[in-house]
Amino acid sequence: MDIKLTTGKVISVLANESILNALKRHEVYLVASCGGKGTCGKCKVKIIEGKVDVVSTGKLTLRERESGFVLACQSFPQGDILVEIPESSRLIIGDKIAVSRSRDLFELLKSFEVEVKPIVNTVDLKLPPPSISDNISDLERLKRALDDIGIKDMRFSYKFVSSMADTLRQAGWDVTLGYIDGPEAIFISPRKDGARYGIAIDIGTTTVVVYLVDLMEGRLIDVGLTYNSQMRYGDDVITRIVHATEGGGLNELRSFVVSDINTLLATMTERHGIAKEAVESATVAGNTTMTHLFWGLNPRYIREEPYIPTLNLFPMWKAGTAKININPQSPVYTLPCIASYVGGDIVSGVLASKMHRSSEVALFMDIGTNGEIVLGNNEWLMTAACSAGPCFEGSGIRHGMRATEGAIEAVRINPETLEPDITVIGDARPMGICGSGMIDAISEMFLTGIIDQKGRFVRDRDKKTWRLKEGEEGFEYVFYKDEDIEIALTEVDIENILRAKAAIYAGVSLLVKEVGFTLDTIEKVYIAGGFGNYLDVEKAIILGMLPDLPRQRFSFLGNTSVAGAYLCLLSEDLRKEAEDIASKMTYMELSVSRGFMDEYMSAMFLPHTDMSQFPTVEKLLKGA
Amino acid sequence: MDIKLTTGKVISVLANESILNALKRHEVYLVASCGGKGTCGKCKVKIIEGKVDVVSTGKLTLRERESGFVLACQSFPQGDILVEIPESSRLIIGDKIAVSRSRDLFELLKSFEVEVKPIVNTVDLKLPPPSISDNISDLERLKRALDDIGIKDMRFSYKFVSSMADTLRQAGWDVTLGYIDGPEAIFISPRKDGARYGIAIDIGTTTVVVYLVDLMEGRLIDVGLTYNSQMRYGDDVITRIVHATEGGGLNELRSFVVSDINTLLATMTERHGIAKEAVESATVAGNTTMTHLFWGLNPRYIREEPYIPTLNLFPMWKAGTAKININPQSPVYTLPCIASYVGGDIVSGVLASKMHRSSEVALFMDIGTNGEIVLGNNEWLMTAACSAGPCFEGSGIRHGMRATEGAIEAVRINPETLEPDITVIGDARPMGICGSGMIDAISEMFLTGIIDQKGRFVRDRDKKTWRLKEGEEGFEYVFYKDEDIEIALTEVDIENILRAKAAIYAGVSLLVKEVGFTLDTIEKVYIAGGFGNYLDVEKAIILGMLPDLPRQRFSFLGNTSVAGAYLCLLSEDLRKEAEDIASKMTYMELSVSRGFMDEYMSAMFLPHTDMSQFPTVEKLLKGA
Repeated sequence: MDIKLTTGKVISVLANESILNALKRHEVYLVASCGGKGTCGKCKVKIIEGKVDVVSTGKLTLRERESGFVLACQSFPQGDILVEIPESSRLIIGDKIAVSRSRDLFELLKSFEVEVKPIVNTVDLKLPPPSISDNISDLERLKRALDDIGIKDMRFSYKFVSSMADTLRQAGWDVTLGYIDGPEAIFISPRKDGARYGIAIDIGTTTVVVYLVDLMEGRLIDVGLTYNSQMRYGDDVITRIVHATEGGGLNELRSFVVSDINTLLATMTERHGIAKEAVESATVAGNTTMTHLFWGLNPRYIREEPYIPTLNLFPMWKAGTAKININPQSPVYTLPCIASYVGGDIVSGVLASKMHRSSEVALFMDIGTNGEIVLGNNEWLMTAACSAGPCFEGSGIRHGMRATEGAIEAVRINPETLEPDITVIGDARPMGICGSGMIDAISEMFLTGIIDQKGRFVRDRDKKTWRLKEGEEGFEYVFYKDEDIEIALTEVDIENILRAKAAIYAGVSLLVKEVGFTLDTIEKVYIAGGFGNYLDVEKAIILGMLPDLPRQRFSFLGNTSVAGAYLCLLSEDLRKEAEDIASKMTYMELSVSRGFMDEYMSAMFLPHTDMSQFPTVEKLLKGA
Repeated sequence: MDIKLTTGKVISVLANESILNALKRHEVYLVASCGGKGTCGKCKVKIIEGKVDVVSTGKLTLRERESGFVLACQSFPQGDILVEIPESSRLIIGDKIAVSRSRDLFELLKSFEVEVKPIVNTVDLKLPPPSISDNISDLERLKRALDDIGIKDMRFSYKFVSSMADTLRQAGWDVTLGYIDGPEAIFISPRKDGARYGIAIDIGTTTVVVYLVDLMEGRLIDVGLTYNSQMRYGDDVITRIVHATEGGGLNELRSFVVSDINTLLATMTERHGIAKEAVESATVAGNTTMTHLFWGLNPRYIREEPYIPTLNLFPMWKAGTAKININPQSPVYTLPCIASYVGGDIVSGVLASKMHRSSEVALFMDIGTNGEIVLGNNEWLMTAACSAGPCFEGSGIRHGMRATEGAIEAVRINPETLEPDITVIGDARPMGICGSGMIDAISEMFLTGIIDQKGRFVRDRDKKTWRLKEGEEGFEYVFYKDEDIEIALTEVDIENILRAKAAIYAGVSLLVKEVGFTLDTIEKVYIAGGFGNYLDVEKAIILGMLPDLPRQRFSFLGNTSVAGAYLCLLSEDLRKEAEDIASKMTYMELSVSRGFMDEYMSAMFLPHTDMSQFPTVEKLLKGA
């Protein structure tokens, strides 16, 4: 018996094996935070063809059941079946490209020329066993040994002390003590010389990424990615804040994202035979709202003028407090936030870009759900948030999806035939279009005259192609069509994308003006965000999202939020550098800036109303 | 309708009122940790006469039900009834004698000539409200204000931060911050000028005592006392340790004692209209095992040679960690322990006795469940535990009870008629005999020749009285008899009491020898323990429990454990003094001392085999 996936992959099924287990055996992981008991309702898959024995339908709605959805953990194939896995059910574990970049990350760490020093320090201690003549308590014995090596005034938490007596005896009084600066004791274990593990977490509004790291070698052991389960309460931070505050859903939102992290973690540690308790530290980067929700802090005042977060600089709280399933005593380092709409993900990104170490003026742009920008160098840093919205991550776009298998990531349109040439991630059957695909598509449609400067379909031109047609929401252009699916961009989609790019460009313009510079003083442009491994800078300039600067000044850095979290996991100096970045950065509140609306309206064209800002695009259009 | 209690008290009942509520309305409090829902099974009372409508019998055993026991919260009188309240169901709240001693305690505190400084410091802060131009986060705003008054590097726990944002706004940015040295933030509240509250807890093996204290005035607001619910697992520390370890009942024992504290606390705060969250700090004194169990630490290694506690000097953990129902952030100061069998109750007692401040050599004796002794002065302190057992608190004695209403606390026997003259606490109907009553009784029986030097009934003498008779366990002497009850001491009881007094006396002898002194070098003898308000030193010397020293050298101090906890609640200097006492005290392990068994066997007589140690008793007997 086989399970065929709509992406084309074929998987064999054992007798009496659930779909969940069969997929897992072939390293196709689904979200299943209940561990496959049918209670969490997250491992939804759609049966397209074939017969399946369904034990329970758990939390599935009637509508979902009628549409052919089943819970993979409760469903047993009764013959060959064809299955579609919705993105929200997927855990992407061990992404080969990300893991292969492991070496790059370590090279990046080395390039900083800092000491590798994880958050937890360790010291080996051989204590004399107690006797009637040396009968001080266990804790005094430990303190005496620490005193002997010059470590004084260590703090001991209740959790540490409560398991200490048994561990000391099981270890024959020969132990390794883990502690953080303070100093504060974190763990005690039989003396160990083996590997030590940590995790770097990026909490995006749309996706959650966890890196499992070997702290001794700085090696990336595995990478996990999944949708942020909070997505069911809205695509952007504002709807999440509303749900947390008005719906009273703070704990719900918190537990969703924590469960996402724990599911990724459990899958990865199991895959590599690592005990979860052996994970001794964590770093977390996210925007200010995501960081607040992760810690269960009410984000309410982030949304209300004057937009105040509860805190930006987080104390080193514990994994047990965060409810992350590693050693509950493990310290969790939170990348510091700057303001309500510029968070630790941006500090993390600036750190990973190294712009704060160079005298060159650089622009850092994180084009994720929000759209944050940073301008500066080793002397000053300015930042702003653009409220670009989540469309480049697929939300609010009819066939939008993030940059995973099945996403159209590049588009060329033949100016003669108006036929598209598409590139799909993983060479799979297309399922949607991701951010880089949208940028490509709009630029190409503009260059080929399918749409005008305002992003409207030019309906009065010769209709040379069936692909330009009127759909339910008005005109649209179809990039892909087969018997099941039709992938198009609509005029509504295009307007959403223009809004997003206009917000970003207006933010950049304003920030540059604020410091009295012009765009061409920018010597480097670092682009981060969920564009997978591909972003065509040329097309993003034609779109008018990026400034029209010499192309060699641009670098695409990928997910810099998790990269910075990785760096902080391994280096105390870089944690301090992250805090320096945060304290140095000046936040500009665009929403109260008078110039913003003008800049925004001017940028709502392709590429811009003021073509003198886009000389190479102007030249290109005239040449065409 | 009335409820008549077997103690004689009469209470009116309202229509549809449970026994529990009727009693409470008349300030007769029962243990009801579930709050009267019928689920905890603790408010057991026995219906002697009358009709009661029983809604539910909850956790009562068949045997209890057959014996007439009901749950007071689930039972509604249907006419006049006669009710007996077993001691284990009782909360003694607002004990008049204890509360009246409030002034003495405050005088004691003043006599130390230290600064009154509770554990939590407070500072009033008026923060500027945030604005777009001053938009730092709430926590940074708080830190900035603290910086301005020179308080730097404060630590902020997760719990503190998670409620901070709302409080700041509700308070209009005009707040009182509570913090402990470190510094670490504890609470933030709208600015308050009102009362501040703390609790001092004494966890005895037999009883739990809680003092509710006004921290501004040092005033004792109320006093609560109840049986330690762990009693159902045995009377002494060893059976508790066995249950914690072998029965796996650690969490059970912990939750029992914590629930006792919480029940007392809830009753007292309700009675005085104080919010539980307003209680900002706590101090706890108990023996080493009780302290470990209170904190949920496995006491296993206390019992196994070489008898090692997990810790003696406790960090300042939080009320939330201890699961005490006050502000979860409130610091809990634990009186330091010395060794496995000399705990924080003894350090507390030494502190309250002030022997550590005087050049006179003093002997401190805590005759509770265990029997700990301390010898020393302002230069040195020696301590030992005597394993006396809990008989002076009523356990292991057929009609034994602790020193509460209905206990025979004093006995005189007419040498002619052999008729006793008894004094009962609260002038109530006798229900049993407490420690001081036992000491009196045995001395009197010895002096009147009812028992011999070995504590045996002299059966061949003229039987002048019906009170000396053969019972189920051999001979016994009846002190009180009515239609329902017969209160006697048996030969087995007497042997138990002799064992206890011999252990104490042997410990004292050995400790004095250890330091090269003789008994008469002791200039002061401080006696602490559960003897209520009465202990006849003369009789205790005749018994051979106390050394035969001039009577004016003896002082009875009552419950010094809770007194020391009270002192530590109000003074930082005295908390430091308690730690000095602990670090100065040398522990002597009697169980491995070769001389102990000899001393013990010699002390198993009345008063002792070596009469030269008891010259005044010898004289008395010769005179008789």
